[in-house]
Amino acid sequence: MDYPIEFRRHSAAHVMAAAIKQLFPEAKFGVGPVVEHGFYYDIDIGRPVTAEDLKAIQKGMQKIVNQNPAFVREEVDIDDAIKLFDELGQTYKLELLNDLKTKGTTKVSVEEAQDIDPQNVGSVTLYRTAEFVDLCRGPHVTEAKDIGVWKLHKVAGAYWRGKETNPQMQRIYGLCFATKEELAEYEAMVIEAEKRDHRKLGQELELFHIDEMVGKGLVLWLPKGAAVRQQVENLAMEMEGEYGYERVVTPHIAKEELFLTSGHLPYYKDDMYPAMVMDDGTYYMKAMNCPHHHIIYRHKPRSYRELPVRLAEYGTVYRNERSGTLAGLLRVRALAMNDAHIYCRKDQIKDEFKRVMELTMGYFKIFGLENFWFRLSKWSPDHLDKYVNEPDNWEYSQNVLREVLIEMDVPFKEIDNEAAFYGPKVDVMFKSVIGREETMSTVQLDFIAKTRFGLEYTDEKGEKNGEIFVIHRAPLSTHERFMAFLIEHYAGAFPLWLAPVQIAVLPVADRHVEFAQSLAKELSALGLRVSVDDSTESVGKKIRNAEKQKYPRMLVVGDREAGGGALTVRIHGEPDQQEISKEEFIKKSLHEIKSRTA
Amino acid sequence: MDYPIEFRRHSAAHVMAAAIKQLFPEAKFGVGPVVEHGFYYDIDIGRPVTAEDLKAIQKGMQKIVNQNPAFVREEVDIDDAIKLFDELGQTYKLELLNDLKTKGTTKVSVEEAQDIDPQNVGSVTLYRTAEFVDLCRGPHVTEAKDIGVWKLHKVAGAYWRGKETNPQMQRIYGLCFATKEELAEYEAMVIEAEKRDHRKLGQELELFHIDEMVGKGLVLWLPKGAAVRQQVENLAMEMEGEYGYERVVTPHIAKEELFLTSGHLPYYKDDMYPAMVMDDGTYYMKAMNCPHHHIIYRHKPRSYRELPVRLAEYGTVYRNERSGTLAGLLRVRALAMNDAHIYCRKDQIKDEFKRVMELTMGYFKIFGLENFWFRLSKWSPDHLDKYVNEPDNWEYSQNVLREVLIEMDVPFKEIDNEAAFYGPKVDVMFKSVIGREETMSTVQLDFIAKTRFGLEYTDEKGEKNGEIFVIHRAPLSTHERFMAFLIEHYAGAFPLWLAPVQIAVLPVADRHVEFAQSLAKELSALGLRVSVDDSTESVGKKIRNAEKQKYPRMLVVGDREAGGGALTVRIHGEPDQQEISKEEFIKKSLHEIKSRTA
Repeated sequence: MDYPIEFRRHSAAHVMAAAIKQLFPEAKFGVGPVVEHGFYYDIDIGRPVTAEDLKAIQKGMQKIVNQNPAFVREEVDIDDAIKLFDELGQTYKLELLNDLKTKGTTKVSVEEAQDIDPQNVGSVTLYRTAEFVDLCRGPHVTEAKDIGVWKLHKVAGAYWRGKETNPQMQRIYGLCFATKEELAEYEAMVIEAEKRDHRKLGQELELFHIDEMVGKGLVLWLPKGAAVRQQVENLAMEMEGEYGYERVVTPHIAKEELFLTSGHLPYYKDDMYPAMVMDDGTYYMKAMNCPHHHIIYRHKPRSYRELPVRLAEYGTVYRNERSGTLAGLLRVRALAMNDAHIYCRKDQIKDEFKRVMELTMGYFKIFGLENFWFRLSKWSPDHLDKYVNEPDNWEYSQNVLREVLIEMDVPFKEIDNEAAFYGPKVDVMFKSVIGREETMSTVQLDFIAKTRFGLEYTDEKGEKNGEIFVIHRAPLSTHERFMAFLIEHYAGAFPLWLAPVQIAVLPVADRHVEFAQSLAKELSALGLRVSVDDSTESVGKKIRNAEKQKYPRMLVVGDREAGGGALTVRIHGEPDQQEISKEEFIKKSLHEIKSRTA
Repeated sequence: MDYPIEFRRHSAAHVMAAAIKQLFPEAKFGVGPVVEHGFYYDIDIGRPVTAEDLKAIQKGMQKIVNQNPAFVREEVDIDDAIKLFDELGQTYKLELLNDLKTKGTTKVSVEEAQDIDPQNVGSVTLYRTAEFVDLCRGPHVTEAKDIGVWKLHKVAGAYWRGKETNPQMQRIYGLCFATKEELAEYEAMVIEAEKRDHRKLGQELELFHIDEMVGKGLVLWLPKGAAVRQQVENLAMEMEGEYGYERVVTPHIAKEELFLTSGHLPYYKDDMYPAMVMDDGTYYMKAMNCPHHHIIYRHKPRSYRELPVRLAEYGTVYRNERSGTLAGLLRVRALAMNDAHIYCRKDQIKDEFKRVMELTMGYFKIFGLENFWFRLSKWSPDHLDKYVNEPDNWEYSQNVLREVLIEMDVPFKEIDNEAAFYGPKVDVMFKSVIGREETMSTVQLDFIAKTRFGLEYTDEKGEKNGEIFVIHRAPLSTHERFMAFLIEHYAGAFPLWLAPVQIAVLPVADRHVEFAQSLAKELSALGLRVSVDDSTESVGKKIRNAEKQKYPRMLVVGDREAGGGALTVRIHGEPDQQEISKEEFIKKSLHEIKSRTA
């Protein structure tokens, strides 16, 4: 039968509990909810659960499923339920039932709460499976054979009801899918994700370092990570140069007055770093680059001839995230971004938005991103209080955004009532190489900056016009997220143009080191990033090290090469090596780098 | 006679006062000290001093000098002096004398205090010149004709004794030099300095903007300023790449623990931005890049094979300067610098220091700086409390620094007892194009970082060695100071390689705009920074505008050029234009840019 996956997973939790009950008759049960990809159950058997226990439980579950018991629902009075679990010695369940009876709620986490129907606390539902009976709202599959496939994969300690003063229970995690293929696919994805984990690769490839003494969420880019960053920034400067952007550099801090004008204060204050009181006012680290760019826009009178003005910056912003939530590059406190703000007239919005989309897709092509779609978030005329009151601008701009998406023939969805307060936006949605869907970036239209900052221009007739529209865009996400993404996307094997070390020169023996170094010098002078392995390791070991460091090109240098013969080139990940003249190798490499095709 | 210049200037102040006394018999006098380049006197004539008054006073001074009175010194009892100035109605002088008598000091500024000898308050000295008598310590020139040349050049309001509640006096400023030539030279320098003023040019050339709403001392680099910055940064990356530096990127903030370890806290606390208390500790904006670099050095075990490690960064640091002291780019609160730290063994100090010196002089050559010398600041064995207690390291390193300076055959001076607490340093002293001497940058040796941060490496025998020496260096000063310097140095006319706009394309008429734009596109695609003046101005006006913006190359595009003929090129500051084929122009320009020879 085609059950919702939650039915299967929750049923598997019951079957697991039944198997545990058979193996450990004295076992006490906490809660056993569905989680992403499977389920867990918190149990107390008076000792830690071992790997052997897990095997036995998995086997016991199979035995029960083979007997194919039904999941039998029973509605009983709460007092009868209390009596039953008391007799069974299930003290944890008893506690939940008593809470439910006296307080009308179990006041526990969302996961636990699903076992109890808050609408009906006079009676509760039980489910019986084999010899196991559980307090449970259901629903379940009809018979155990309908569960599908499952696999117990992890045990962790967990305090009862999440409180450190409570007894520690054992949380047994299981995966559960409808088919073997789905489980296998998920497991392969997990292995792939672990292999590509940006924290693991970030350390192995010496890309970045986060240090307790500097602070959580503050990334130190090591030489190799800084080299990749520089290439991404160079790409941005080059592409945006072609698209008519002007680059600026702005301070990382500003006075309170700026953020009061932009509206970040007081509304966004909790997400900003704490105030710094100086002798001439209160300063904050910036949470956005836009206010600084608006100041640059308006620092001199602007003529219609200058529009659109496109100000770009690899700018850094600061967010006061809670320290406990900080993790690797995905959640940090200081974020750089290839940010830009476009200042244009209303009749230029369409063109400018289209150019932003083209630029974005130009980036995607270079990085080989293919699975993307767009999400157009619109206002809602039914929720006028949520949106800046410019109905004509909303309708006009939403229409032109839609027109562009249609003209470009890209997949998109429209969502009502999801726009920002100050204008519609288009999110770029992307499916990662390991199947995770995420928002890569956002193009945001802004009707309100013109009012807040008094942005204006002088029109053809010499008159002041305050109808300046701002487009916020950062197609490469934040640099930190994007680097995490790139590391995962390439599994650390950056293409030639992007790699921190592009060419590893590997002398076969000591007598080839001198030639290796002169070759490296020649290649470096051409702007290539080269390293020489002049260690005393064997050449086999040198190759393995270079493979591990995922250097895109290796030049093995022995007697023939040092004697002026052709070069021996190994390409990362390819088993064979090839011979190629030095001139040809240089020409090919420079071309691949310039065109960013490898 | 060859008097010290202060004698002349102070005597000129007395002669000015004597002339004022003749012209305005009721004038009351405040103080009249020597200042840089001249002197002033604060006077009260009951109304503002006009330009006509200044001329009359200048003339009156000449008349007195022609009579050549002597400067007659007289020592009198303080009570006699009080009586004398009371009779003369000199209420301000009287106040000073009474203060001196009752408090033993005039408690006024250093400038005023020079009039009175604090060692001898029982009697005071007077000087008489013509009919003017002044309370004054002297000394003066013997006769008025020995003053030299002078020129009254400025009047400003000044409160008596600098207090706003006191009467406002008129401060008359005069220049004074021994010879006409010296005065002329100084005046020419002032005119030149005004023409080259980085604040004036920074605005005219749209290089940077400082905005009250963002905050004083926080520079917004406008597109043109950011372009120059990028070129300087590219130069640094290129040069330091050649010298084996690795670039890193570090956060602008860190936890208190880092700065306690480095020793910046608590000693440097007042100069740092205020603390930011977060949920996991206290954070500060960094005042130096070194602690972050030390963390990168020690983030992994280092082998002797890796040394020297050279970590470079265009890093930004923050200084909590008082808002009243902030001015243009010369005193700011956020400073970027082409910073680097070199980690090496003791026996590598000499080589590394020499390489730093070569790199520094390499920069100077590119920027055409010629008038420099070096200042070696050493410790003093007589002040052991001021210096880290490593006598061998002091002697060894001072010797190798000296050896390098001698080997390089550069001018240098040695100064005892001026080193930093943690090591000797070499300052690079430079005389600017308008004759001002300043410290361009510093190379600082550091014996203490190894101890504070536990810096170490594994030596040839596999043993840990903690003798890591650090060299701090930032040859291009801070970016802000350096930009102020470059603007002044080039009077805003940046060389081709550095200019924000390298080539201005100036169409003669509307019908040439299309060709101008396609030419600009072709040049831009080669990486050149080009702008087209497609305004409706006459070509003469366009040339004048481009000259004013100091664009290094102008291409005037008319019928012949648009028809495929040679290009007409004007070079900034050169009166003649030349004809040159497009291919030749491109080749020449690219060569000049790559070699940074224009």
